[in-house]
Amino acid sequence: MEWNVYLSGEIHTDWREKIIAGCEEHNLPINFSSAVTNHEASDAAGDVLGKDENNFWRDHKSAKVNAIRIKTLLENSDLAVVRFGDKYKQWNAAFDAGFCAALGTPYITLHDEDIIHPLKEVDAAAMAWAQTPEQVVEVLKYTIAQK
Amino acid sequence: MEWNVYLSGEIHTDWREKIIAGCEEHNLPINFSSAVTNHEASDAAGDVLGKDENNFWRDHKSAKVNAIRIKTLLENSDLAVVRFGDKYKQWNAAFDAGFCAALGTPYITLHDEDIIHPLKEVDAAAMAWAQTPEQVVEVLKYTIAQK
Amino acid sequence: MEWNVYLSGEIHTDWREKIIAGCEEHNLPINFSSAVTNHEASDAAGDVLGKDENNFWRDHKSAKVNAIRIKTLLENSDLAVVRFGDKYKQWNAAFDAGFCAALGTPYITLHDEDIIHPLKEVDAAAMAWAQTPEQVVEVLKYTIAQK
Amino acid sequence: MEWNVYLSGEIHTDWREKIIAGCEEHNLPINFSSAVTNHEASDAAGDVLGKDENNFWRDHKSAKVNAIRIKTLLENSDLAVVRFGDKYKQWNAAFDAGFCAALGTPYITLHDEDIIHPLKEVDAAAMAWAQTPEQVVEVLKYTIAQK
Amino acid sequence: MEWNVYLSGEIHTDWREKIIAGCEEHNLPINFSSAVTNHEASDAAGDVLGKDENNFWRDHKSAKVNAIRIKTLLENSDLAVVRFGDKYKQWNAAFDAGFCAALGTPYITLHDEDIIHPLKEVDAAAMAWAQTPEQVVEVLKYTIAQK
Amino acid sequence: MEWNVYLSGEIHTDWREKIIAGCEEHNLPINFSSAVTNHEASDAAGDVLGKDENNFWRDHKSAKVNAIRIKTLLENSDLAVVRFGDKYKQWNAAFDAGFCAALGTPYITLHDEDIIHPLKEVDAAAMAWAQTPEQVVEVLKYTIAQK
Amino acid sequence: MEWNVYLSGEIHTDWREKIIAGCEEHNLPINFSSAVTNHEASDAAGDVLGKDENNFWRDHKSAKVNAIRIKTLLENSDLAVVRFGDKYKQWNAAFDAGFCAALGTPYITLHDEDIIHPLKEVDAAAMAWAQTPEQVVEVLKYTIAQK
Amino acid sequence: MEWNVYLSGEIHTDWREKIIAGCEEHNLPINFSSAVTNHEASDAAGDVLGKDENNFWRDHKSAKVNAIRIKTLLENSDLAVVRFGDKYKQWNAAFDAGFCAALGTPYITLHDEDIIHPLKEVDAAAMAWAQTPEQVVEVLKYTIAQK
Repeated sequence: MEWNVYLSGEIHTDWREKIIAGCEEHNLPINFSSAVTNHEASDAAGDVLGKDENNFWRDHKSAKVNAIRIKTLLENSDLAVVRFGDKYKQWNAAFDAGFCAALGTPYITLHDEDIIHPLKEVDAAAMAWAQTPEQVVEVLKYTIAQK
Repeated sequence: MEWNVYLSGEIHTDWREKIIAGCEEHNLPINFSSAVTNHEASDAAGDVLGKDENNFWRDHKSAKVNAIRIKTLLENSDLAVVRFGDKYKQWNAAFDAGFCAALGTPYITLHDEDIIHPLKEVDAAAMAWAQTPEQVVEVLKYTIAQK
Repeated sequence: MEWNVYLSGEIHTDWREKIIAGCEEHNLPINFSSAVTNHEASDAAGDVLGKDENNFWRDHKSAKVNAIRIKTLLENSDLAVVRFGDKYKQWNAAFDAGFCAALGTPYITLHDEDIIHPLKEVDAAAMAWAQTPEQVVEVLKYTIAQK
Repeated sequence: MEWNVYLSGEIHTDWREKIIAGCEEHNLPINFSSAVTNHEASDAAGDVLGKDENNFWRDHKSAKVNAIRIKTLLENSDLAVVRFGDKYKQWNAAFDAGFCAALGTPYITLHDEDIIHPLKEVDAAAMAWAQTPEQVVEVLKYTIAQK
Repeated sequence: MEWNVYLSGEIHTDWREKIIAGCEEHNLPINFSSAVTNHEASDAAGDVLGKDENNFWRDHKSAKVNAIRIKTLLENSDLAVVRFGDKYKQWNAAFDAGFCAALGTPYITLHDEDIIHPLKEVDAAAMAWAQTPEQVVEVLKYTIAQK
Repeated sequence: MEWNVYLSGEIHTDWREKIIAGCEEHNLPINFSSAVTNHEASDAAGDVLGKDENNFWRDHKSAKVNAIRIKTLLENSDLAVVRFGDKYKQWNAAFDAGFCAALGTPYITLHDEDIIHPLKEVDAAAMAWAQTPEQVVEVLKYTIAQK
Repeated sequence: MEWNVYLSGEIHTDWREKIIAGCEEHNLPINFSSAVTNHEASDAAGDVLGKDENNFWRDHKSAKVNAIRIKTLLENSDLAVVRFGDKYKQWNAAFDAGFCAALGTPYITLHDEDIIHPLKEVDAAAMAWAQTPEQVVEVLKYTIAQK
Repeated sequence: MEWNVYLSGEIHTDWREKIIAGCEEHNLPINFSSAVTNHEASDAAGDVLGKDENNFWRDHKSAKVNAIRIKTLLENSDLAVVRFGDKYKQWNAAFDAGFCAALGTPYITLHDEDIIHPLKEVDAAAMAWAQTPEQVVEVLKYTIAQK
């Protein structure tokens, strides 16, 4: 079985690369996917359909184009990793976690100890809480390759 | 038909009371529900099962007890209103929105204009964005009572 | 058992009133529901949230507010009647029929003989095709009250 | 991941060919599918089972044979593009859009500006509105291939 | 809890009446439902929509009108009793049993010993096989009223 | 796309072989599947688990072993063909049709004209009625290969 | 909202009575339900359908009759409490827990500390672990009645 | 078709190896999967995320990591074999059976005759009861390879 693993959340550090590289080292049969992580491209996703002056509608149009990708990949995933960093609101990451919870798709959260309290509802529906990408790799290795 | 409307999010202002009072004025047949909004009671929800020293597990236990209520009420709702204020992380509100999106439960967001951008994914899956409780009341009145 | 019957489509003739009156005559236990049939109110459904200059977004906002009602009532229905008249595009009626088909909700179409051909896909997924409101009443009476 | 994209609606212009060619240029991994677009063959789909004199039943039989294909391909699709031209009733396209909406399958509408108003319910449930096949290609390219 | 029990199958003996009377004696809180059991009315169910000369289409039209009722009542049932007598094909009863099996709705079969073999697939998915209406009453009494 | 087509019903004539051969001639990409059609093997399917003296339980055990196969293949099918011959009760075929109807899996019935009336409920939920295997092949060819 | 709470598991101590009495004291709007807890009646549930000599089939028949009740009540429940005592295998309690987990129905386990390890999979999918009926009452009171 | 078969339960005897070897002999197209069967590795599955002193939470964390694998593989399975040995509580095996029952995934139980009674609810929802791995191989061979 090939596993589909979706990587959701923070786009300002290299946690995705670390997890992917770590899993490749162990030759784990995983297809990783993600939203578009290029911030500017993501914000402009809907501009090709006619750019709106109004901020709300420009964001709306782009967010819906992005949602085609996110929703489809997330629904096709066996597992998600949801990362919360120390900056920005990151409501989209919590939204993805809620989406997974309703679908019954297991997810692992990845965040530091100092945001345990505001993330308690998100962690309560998670299958695991990791603090480092290396821990995520270990969990994936165990899940997929342990006899 | 009686409508079940779930009120999710911010617990530090009186937006819930305003929406409920506004709907009562119009005699709308709505059962409102909500998570426990008493912050201290909510954080201590799991303590009756044995209080943990460890912060993560204390939060975990309480969040799961709260989730029995939230999940059940949300799944029974016809509509949710999800409120984002100007303080705190409010990841639980975004989590509820993602949960609704996956279930196909329509929801209305309630937030100020200055957080349009970080909420764009949450708004993209919403049926409406309101800026005041009065607007939410108007939308509910139209939805439920307009001929 | 009380039946929930949704009446979808044309708003320019009195077919809804005829069906409702006919069923009342037979004391059939039916809760009828419908989208807002006041054309102007329907087009302005979203204006309370801030009126847009742009036609597309004004329509979009109103259509989504209307969809809260339509989707909820349609999902709660045991049966729908979908009416096509001889004017306008009436794509919303065909949309509702497709929605019912995917949900497995039975529906009856109500239309004249001269539009059989363009409605063939819609009729193919219907449980019955009626040409008059009186026929719909007869089918409802049989379905609900026949021993 | 290979994407399954269903092309629904108008059969009198070459919008399907343009989208397919545009995606091939970018080597996008897409399997396109569609209803039978040969109008005469489609109308005669059921004749092999015994041709009916009665117009309604001839259409009914053919529409059901076509529905085997449409329903199966649509349910297997990750995304649909629904095209409305300037002629004919095109209720089948709106029916497909409603079917997608109920299944939670994202779809993009493709139509001119002058039919925004009658399509507002169909657009309200869509993830994007495009006016040209080239825009659809751009959205597909972004969705599938953007990093 | 009130139980909804659907009685499917044979219409030529009084097994329905016996079960209903037996359950009333024990004051069991059951809403019984059934297809139309008046054979002539059932065969003519679609005639109000325009009577077809062609036998297949007349039956088709009537069977679909009947299906509105059967499908709705069966989907709302907690339990079905499916009766096979010693005459006729009774494919509709086996069809209802297969429908229940796919929905996960429990059903009890009611038939004599001499048709065990041809009913083995139907019995294999049933929760119980009864030979008399009295046994069905006993099972219902136990299921609903036993402490 | 490869289509999975399940062939249900009568095992005493060569209709399966004719359909398979006809589809092979046209190189249609179909995986055909079926219950075990060797009557004796099918009746003895459960004997390996310990043969029962009691007829009901022997049949029950075998029917359940067969159901592992039937249920799995049917749930994986895109389309079923359900054949009714002129002998035996064939309740399992009607059961499979009801199962498909509840799952929303399209099916084609294959039977002679003289059993239209007792099969009316089964035909009402079918997408097509064929009288010969050759007609089924034509419908499959159209569904899968027509441009 | 009235809550439906299913009480699963051990039948040899009075934990059910304690929970029910505790909830009545607080006037909580709960409908409690349960499998038949009279051991002898439960083992004989199928005897009315003809008593089997063979132990496996006698148990099988009775267990299926009981399953009509258990499955129906469990599927209608908002919450389950699953109790494991210190005697017997109690596989049916673990079976009910797995059933709830797959349905997404929240459940609370009730057991002593000394069986934490063998119950770890069952507890991992639970929303709470209680050691006394009084704790269950507290959790129910909080869930249902806390503002 | 390749079949996915999940092997659940007892880890202290070689029943898995026997079934796998027996199926390989017959070249059956089966992908077998299983929870991690190394007892120590399984108990320590969550330790990489930070080892807890508290027994309950250590077990909890490990059981949830294991559940990522179990839930995913079980949901992807066409069939499960659930083995009960003569030692230990084995509540996880009964939990898996209940999980399968709710999903509609067929399963075969594998256990000795002396535990028929406590397993009656688990057996009642199973498609077959085998006493030896060889019998399971025979059922799989019949299910997958019999013409």
